[in-house]
Amino acid sequence: MNKHNFSAGPSILSEYTIKNSAAAVIDFEGTGLSILEVSHRGKEFVAVCDEARARIKKLLDVPAGYEVVFLGGGASLQFCMVPFNLLNRKASYLDTGTWASNAIKEAKLFGEVDVVASSKDANYTFIPKNYRVGEDSDYFHFTSNNTIYGTEMRYDPDCGNGVRLVCDMSSDIFSRPVDVSKYDIIYAGAQKNLAPAGVTLAIVREGSLGHVERAIPTMLDYRTHIKKESMFNTPPVFPIFAALQTLKWYKELGGLEAIEKMNLEKAAILYDEIDRNRLFRGTVATEDRSIMNVCFVMNDEYKDMEADFGAFASAAGMVGIKGHRSVGGFRASLYNAMPKSSVEALISTMKTFEKQH
Amino acid sequence: MNKHNFSAGPSILSEYTIKNSAAAVIDFEGTGLSILEVSHRGKEFVAVCDEARARIKKLLDVPAGYEVVFLGGGASLQFCMVPFNLLNRKASYLDTGTWASNAIKEAKLFGEVDVVASSKDANYTFIPKNYRVGEDSDYFHFTSNNTIYGTEMRYDPDCGNGVRLVCDMSSDIFSRPVDVSKYDIIYAGAQKNLAPAGVTLAIVREGSLGHVERAIPTMLDYRTHIKKESMFNTPPVFPIFAALQTLKWYKELGGLEAIEKMNLEKAAILYDEIDRNRLFRGTVATEDRSIMNVCFVMNDEYKDMEADFGAFASAAGMVGIKGHRSVGGFRASLYNAMPKSSVEALISTMKTFEKQH
Repeated sequence: MNKHNFSAGPSILSEYTIKNSAAAVIDFEGTGLSILEVSHRGKEFVAVCDEARARIKKLLDVPAGYEVVFLGGGASLQFCMVPFNLLNRKASYLDTGTWASNAIKEAKLFGEVDVVASSKDANYTFIPKNYRVGEDSDYFHFTSNNTIYGTEMRYDPDCGNGVRLVCDMSSDIFSRPVDVSKYDIIYAGAQKNLAPAGVTLAIVREGSLGHVERAIPTMLDYRTHIKKESMFNTPPVFPIFAALQTLKWYKELGGLEAIEKMNLEKAAILYDEIDRNRLFRGTVATEDRSIMNVCFVMNDEYKDMEADFGAFASAAGMVGIKGHRSVGGFRASLYNAMPKSSVEALISTMKTFEKQH
Repeated sequence: MNKHNFSAGPSILSEYTIKNSAAAVIDFEGTGLSILEVSHRGKEFVAVCDEARARIKKLLDVPAGYEVVFLGGGASLQFCMVPFNLLNRKASYLDTGTWASNAIKEAKLFGEVDVVASSKDANYTFIPKNYRVGEDSDYFHFTSNNTIYGTEMRYDPDCGNGVRLVCDMSSDIFSRPVDVSKYDIIYAGAQKNLAPAGVTLAIVREGSLGHVERAIPTMLDYRTHIKKESMFNTPPVFPIFAALQTLKWYKELGGLEAIEKMNLEKAAILYDEIDRNRLFRGTVATEDRSIMNVCFVMNDEYKDMEADFGAFASAAGMVGIKGHRSVGGFRASLYNAMPKSSVEALISTMKTFEKQH
């Protein structure tokens, strides 16, 4: 049976990425060796790493003065690495969910943290607006897409006073164009829109570094990795190879404008069905709906059918649509590699289930 | 042509590991999905991660009170993570090479560091002996195998005063049995004897944690990862899957005693040839020779043939035998997965080259 992979992350990757990665595990670019056993300093892999960084710069139109680095440890390590490098006295954070809140917790170890707004009391069902970022902030940190709750900020906020942005884009990077010049740091775990788990991407404005007085452990200092072009120590070779395949595929798709258009279409048809179908309802404020993670629950009068729909969808090939325990219900993650046909298959399942009940 | 992969790391993995990893990139255990796109919280991968940790405990005979965790960031991140968690006032370090020296640099950010001995002045060509570890040390840190210089401590040192050990075993873990009970922490980047690059293994004595007063960022606190069984955040899924394959293969080989025996044999025949062949000589003190990384140079009178031998060996299928720039000459890494037949092929190349000159 054809599987439709709606997992929240690690999540669906393109066939192009998977096919080329599998081939490289057997023979990496004609070297006669597996990509799993080649030196990261060999010319073949250095070329892969350089090309991946260059393609990210091109795809996101990264301006001069910024560098792209590949790191280990996941986005969660960035929660402490960002304040280690940037937080002198005070930083502002927007609390839009579990990961935002985890980032806030780490920042507090390094200085004053102004949580400018939070939607925690409403179980993070909306993105707070009308907050003010003080001009004495070293940076303003936000999470562009909240994987667990299904809300998204599909824009680059403007603090209005020159304070630059730091963003955790783990679950929506490469889903739309971004104005990188507004940011000091953009970081993202790769395991949604880029590569298998094990590599984290950071885009860093070099001018933002070197202004804190604390000693920074070498591996946690972005300058270490920028200077050595992500080769200070052994980088996660295979995930970087896979990332390059995804980046090539994005070029073929027509770049981020084209990808955003596809993402908007996929999300629109699913949200339309949720709004139409008498069994289901969305869980978040309409204007803040994520186009990456679509969260929905059974309407109250059908609440006892939740397990039934889960089993029915699973039998129809839907994978990973169980909602996070913080929200319940269902979550369909529609990352870049998710084909529209899979979204249509899910919609069809919802329609059939509605007819049967 | 058959390639013989002598790379220092990332390095040769068993055919078993590579074959099974390639298959899982196409279909992970009959799920119909690639291992690259499955949730780390799915039951199939949780089972993989648990089994890998359990097999490590069994293989190394890890006593009660210790836990095994998989981390990101490489062994270099452990250089700061160890003192973050263990260094209260003073720690002792043995300086046996580049990585030991990098570990010392990071520890100095956290407290007093007593470098009990160093062979730096001799370009790290031997392992210092007769040093004394003060009983006021929180721990004694050493690097069991020095990949760059080709020296190795194939024993668990005894400080004689109850001070426990911390060891970077990145390049010789699983090459021999170890008495884990002497250690507070053993850590190892996976990319030599375990898996492709991207995951780091730590074996931690739980009783050693929680005795420092400093605040530890969540991701740098071993307790975070122990408590969540390496699932606090998304772990490097694919490298952990590959690690499990290697661990299964080690069981088939007969465990660490059997593996050590094979390693000793492989190293012995190569060192014998280096000692016999009039063109070459080893670079380190005989008693400290590593069985993982065999470093050798041309004898002085044949020094100008170095590039020629490199090209000759390369034409015969030898990969990755160029020595590190700190030593020059050649380095043949004989990790667990290296078949004796490849070592014999290298020896044959050395003999042929000798006859021709």
